[in-house]
Amino acid sequence: MTNYSIGVDLGGTNLRIATIDEHGNVLEKVTLGVRVTQGRDLVVEDMCGAIQAAIAKFQAIGPLQGIGIGVPGIIDMAKGTVHESPNLPGWDNYPVRDKIEKRLGTPVILENDANSAALGEMWLGAARGVEDMAIITLGTGVGGGMVLRGRVWHGATGMAGEFGHMTVEPDGALCLCGNRGCLEAYSSATAILRMAREAVASGAATRLREASANAEFSARMVYNLAMQGDEEARKVFDRVGRALGILLAGLINALNLPMYVIGGGVSAAWDLFSPAVFQELRERSMVYAATAPEAKPGRGVSAHVMPGGTTKTIITPAVLGSDAGLFGAARLPFLDRRSDQRTAVRSMTFRKALRKV
Amino acid sequence: MTNYSIGVDLGGTNLRIATIDEHGNVLEKVTLGVRVTQGRDLVVEDMCGAIQAAIAKFQAIGPLQGIGIGVPGIIDMAKGTVHESPNLPGWDNYPVRDKIEKRLGTPVILENDANSAALGEMWLGAARGVEDMAIITLGTGVGGGMVLRGRVWHGATGMAGEFGHMTVEPDGALCLCGNRGCLEAYSSATAILRMAREAVASGAATRLREASANAEFSARMVYNLAMQGDEEARKVFDRVGRALGILLAGLINALNLPMYVIGGGVSAAWDLFSPAVFQELRERSMVYAATAPEAKPGRGVSAHVMPGGTTKTIITPAVLGSDAGLFGAARLPFLDRRSDQRTAVRSMTFRKALRKV
Repeated sequence: MTNYSIGVDLGGTNLRIATIDEHGNVLEKVTLGVRVTQGRDLVVEDMCGAIQAAIAKFQAIGPLQGIGIGVPGIIDMAKGTVHESPNLPGWDNYPVRDKIEKRLGTPVILENDANSAALGEMWLGAARGVEDMAIITLGTGVGGGMVLRGRVWHGATGMAGEFGHMTVEPDGALCLCGNRGCLEAYSSATAILRMAREAVASGAATRLREASANAEFSARMVYNLAMQGDEEARKVFDRVGRALGILLAGLINALNLPMYVIGGGVSAAWDLFSPAVFQELRERSMVYAATAPEAKPGRGVSAHVMPGGTTKTIITPAVLGSDAGLFGAARLPFLDRRSDQRTAVRSMTFRKALRKV
Repeated sequence: MTNYSIGVDLGGTNLRIATIDEHGNVLEKVTLGVRVTQGRDLVVEDMCGAIQAAIAKFQAIGPLQGIGIGVPGIIDMAKGTVHESPNLPGWDNYPVRDKIEKRLGTPVILENDANSAALGEMWLGAARGVEDMAIITLGTGVGGGMVLRGRVWHGATGMAGEFGHMTVEPDGALCLCGNRGCLEAYSSATAILRMAREAVASGAATRLREASANAEFSARMVYNLAMQGDEEARKVFDRVGRALGILLAGLINALNLPMYVIGGGVSAAWDLFSPAVFQELRERSMVYAATAPEAKPGRGVSAHVMPGGTTKTIITPAVLGSDAGLFGAARLPFLDRRSDQRTAVRSMTFRKALRKV
């Protein structure tokens, strides 16, 4: 017999569900055809159906520990609702947790998708074996999450981890958030595209020019040109790395965490931007200078798994890709949440819901 | 009967000792004539003598909970030693904690002085009633400390809280740490003096010119001129506030703490630099925009004491001055340290030391 849990990734275009046992064995990974944009009722209906199917299939192996759901947006832990999720219009104030708990008779835990990704990389990915870490996800935008002393750090209002909107160039490029010089304005896929277009507009002799004339011009194309040695395309990734390095140097000086994981689609360009990251770290962080591993970490996990009491600071690419949030969601029911006041509220709601059933 | 503890401030020019009961009543505050620069043996001797005198005086009120010592420099919690303390030459690798524990037969806890100041402001100062907070001390240099979930956040190697060396202007002024554009290069007393001299050198018409010719030209003189309305002196404090605001905006986005306390001698210029701080916060932090208190916080404590579950972000000047570190040191023995692995090592050493007595 072994405990198992079910994780749900409600963030992507599709709904994904994973059944994982307490040892981290992924028993099943299912992608549902339903699109999260089709509306909450349909989504909840299909999600519950798929969860029930998974329970029917795996209940013989042991007790279900619970269900974790990773959601883009701000989670109200007390109410079990999702706020300001651009991907989930119409979900504001919808008691999604209670609805699903009531429907399935099983505890449900909501978590922000970036925090779930942090938990996933910690459980089954790049940050195995550490208790404290941060993840920075470089995608269309830049997100982040933190785990401190083994527990997600939500902050006072559930908004912690907005690394993408820390200022790295005070008078720099305008960000969608209204600020100038956010990390997101340099190290996101959107920023890569903008910086490539700026290079073209400035008249730089580069193969980016013809690429940018293509209607499908993408960060991926900038990446490909950089890999082929195009000087201007490489400079774009230098800027990605410089901004990320400035930010990480600051975080390391402030938090002195043993591990920072770089995830999101842009992290595939690690080899292009990481030299600039490490250069900034060496120049800007006294804490990094005192704790840098002898060799620069590259891809791969096992070399970075650290015993307790490490004195090294590891910066490493994520390894789970889009599964990080899914696996991290499945991790939620296994975590000790006893000391989390908000969870007490949650459990009361759950018991109340059960009484009504 | 009431528990009490003894706090020691080993950081200043003089050795200071406070006896405080568990309710936060300061029973006695003593400043010893001995200078910490006179060498460790004399300092330890006099410190132990003064502690024994305090114990003799207060032992009737109840049990002594322990002794906390705030020290500038990096603390090795496992070994009970102090590293790289410019104020304490010759203390490296000296088992100061064990020596004093053995001598007095009482548990001793060492803590970094900035972390102690954070605990002090939390216990008896500006951050009463919060569980999570950061302090940034603007002095000759810029230091910092953090308390998360009621416990000091040391980081993986005890180096957390170096807010003074986070980059706020990537190509900015050179800092003593070797980096460019650190907070310390804009918001310390040293930086105020440098920026005032730069204003004079740039030929600005200002009363700073005659002041800077004075051999005793100081940050305090720049402050006085700014208070008298000198335009260039005011601009210096705008830059202090701008740098601090950029940094705080980033910290707020990353950590979403409910309270940030600004301490150190420069914090006396709060009225001069805080407008620029709040302007940067409003422009640069989406988390601050969502959590700013309606009215800008000024001096005074009671208005900022928050009930649990606050949704506000408070930036406030420290109120304890140089007593913060002293009072925080006295707080250490009262804190729950059971889950601190390093403390387990400490306690073992302590028990071993006791057996030898």
